[in-house]
Amino acid sequence: MNAGSFSPSMFIGVEGKGVISFGSGQPDLPPPKQVFDMLPSFKAFKYGLIQGQVNLRRALARQYPRSTAKSFVVTNGASEALDLTLRVLSEHGSGNGKKRKVLLPRPYYYSYPFNVKYAGMEPVYTKLVEGRIDFDDFASKVHDCTAVIINSPSNPTGRVESISTLRKIEKLASDLGVFVISDEVYKDLIYVRENYLIKGPHVVTINSFSKTFAMCGFRVGYLWSLDNEFVKAVIEMKTHSSMNTNILGQEMAYEATKVPRSFIDDQLKIWKERRDLIYEGLSDLGLDLWKPEGAFYVLPKVEKPVDFVLGVFKRYKVITYMGEWFGADERVRFSYALDSEKIEEGLKRVARFLEGRK
Amino acid sequence: MNAGSFSPSMFIGVEGKGVISFGSGQPDLPPPKQVFDMLPSFKAFKYGLIQGQVNLRRALARQYPRSTAKSFVVTNGASEALDLTLRVLSEHGSGNGKKRKVLLPRPYYYSYPFNVKYAGMEPVYTKLVEGRIDFDDFASKVHDCTAVIINSPSNPTGRVESISTLRKIEKLASDLGVFVISDEVYKDLIYVRENYLIKGPHVVTINSFSKTFAMCGFRVGYLWSLDNEFVKAVIEMKTHSSMNTNILGQEMAYEATKVPRSFIDDQLKIWKERRDLIYEGLSDLGLDLWKPEGAFYVLPKVEKPVDFVLGVFKRYKVITYMGEWFGADERVRFSYALDSEKIEEGLKRVARFLEGRK
Repeated sequence: MNAGSFSPSMFIGVEGKGVISFGSGQPDLPPPKQVFDMLPSFKAFKYGLIQGQVNLRRALARQYPRSTAKSFVVTNGASEALDLTLRVLSEHGSGNGKKRKVLLPRPYYYSYPFNVKYAGMEPVYTKLVEGRIDFDDFASKVHDCTAVIINSPSNPTGRVESISTLRKIEKLASDLGVFVISDEVYKDLIYVRENYLIKGPHVVTINSFSKTFAMCGFRVGYLWSLDNEFVKAVIEMKTHSSMNTNILGQEMAYEATKVPRSFIDDQLKIWKERRDLIYEGLSDLGLDLWKPEGAFYVLPKVEKPVDFVLGVFKRYKVITYMGEWFGADERVRFSYALDSEKIEEGLKRVARFLEGRK
Repeated sequence: MNAGSFSPSMFIGVEGKGVISFGSGQPDLPPPKQVFDMLPSFKAFKYGLIQGQVNLRRALARQYPRSTAKSFVVTNGASEALDLTLRVLSEHGSGNGKKRKVLLPRPYYYSYPFNVKYAGMEPVYTKLVEGRIDFDDFASKVHDCTAVIINSPSNPTGRVESISTLRKIEKLASDLGVFVISDEVYKDLIYVRENYLIKGPHVVTINSFSKTFAMCGFRVGYLWSLDNEFVKAVIEMKTHSSMNTNILGQEMAYEATKVPRSFIDDQLKIWKERRDLIYEGLSDLGLDLWKPEGAFYVLPKVEKPVDFVLGVFKRYKVITYMGEWFGADERVRFSYALDSEKIEEGLKRVARFLEGRK
């Protein structure tokens, strides 16, 4: 069986029945209860504003510097925010025939190359070193790009970029007039420092309620930009491509903005314990891996990754994802969005598998 | 003031305060109460299947011939269904440089030309005669198109295509291998006959819960196709562009599928009364118009449409939409999604305006 012939979808619906899944990037802890409390009284049904509901955008504006409700567009998850951003930047209708380029650090979130191609653009890559951006390589490749996607903390690497690197990127992108698309959906899940919000004239920050508040299924994301023309172009496109984001999802997200910070801090403690557990466990197995600094993924090197992923699944009911799906051919991705007992049990099974193929 | 300098967005937020709006295509009657009944007990939060929830797709499969749950993709409204369909058909990444064409009957729903261009394709037009497709003109233009969009009942014309025309289109499209995208969001609002479901090897039917069940704000639409490869390609794209449609909206839509047919019949009676009222009213004012046969729009010719739309708004607080936005330069669109009293009051004001500019 070749790696190209299977994909994350092969694991859908096989959870339960003794399966330990390090697969999906879905928080297992539930959302704050407040997001459900408003449901019984909800009665609205008409179209909402394409840009998003005013109460939600005003609440977001209080979280971002120099912002008003006009700086945001609420979207069907971070996915749609990214999709619209790239489509607006691509101008594939311009007819000059030459595809615009978007720079992606590799390993990357598995949708990025698809998003870039679907927008009629071409992905180019800068290779991460120790899971982080190598600024010299970045600088050598960004000059003829329309945009770059930064994803810190990163899915799949779990790494957080240094602030000095992010500042150099801000400066260079600004000098070159390149758009910086900063996917910060894991901004509240950082173990090593506070999040650093990338700033600049053509910065588009993408975020979501999915990871911070475990609201994946409700698909409420947003983009933030101080580039008014860009925001207007996104709204114009969304008017035709999907109209408003689900009005009930937006109300639930608005409730989430009122949840005390302690909710996030409490979750972060749990994630950090899990991070320590899996990092130490995989290190003890002798695997070569980067220490996760944010998000909930770890991306160890393994020998014969196809054999590994299929073997631990078929023989030990453990789901892991091919690093290849994320541009990391020699690695496999573990999501640690599951409780400590399951992580420990999963690690034991992986140990048995590795022992067995020595 | 030039027609190009205003758009439907100028009317947003000005409703109320004595305003009569024939603008938005938003049903004013509420959804069936059953769709809200399940809210208090809803507790799910995880990602759903990209293709859509199984219970909803199974319920839809009972409404479409020769279908299973596999024949559907649940989307963020009909808008996203159309957007994904066109993007999948465009292959603008194929690099042959030549844009594919999509045939649109004109007047058209105002998003269609944008949707086609955003997908990297080129709209071409066949002119409606008496608000209906002229098959000879259609046939002369469809041969080098990748797809055609059929919208019967039509927004903005209110017209329903004859079954014989639809059958000729089925045959020709099938012979030529052209995709037929049939936007049937008004299929349950037809005053003249039952809906005719277009069939064929490359038919994509687009529908929604927005108009039949007044669920616009929840953005639950879907596409149906018996072309399995096409359905798979849509799912693949949606995996990256927006992931699952809001899980709660889908549950509400599922509840709507269980509502007795009498709900739709009762609504249809109301719509038909309104249709009669506005058709007779505008005819009595001497306007040249097509009798609406479905949906809830009427598209009369008026002299100096810019002057008309701005005049009735500024002097009589009546909102109408420029026909130009729908490819009908000499006309204006009235939506009659408002109660009879308001329709009568609006007609009186329009009469006064027309009297005043004689």
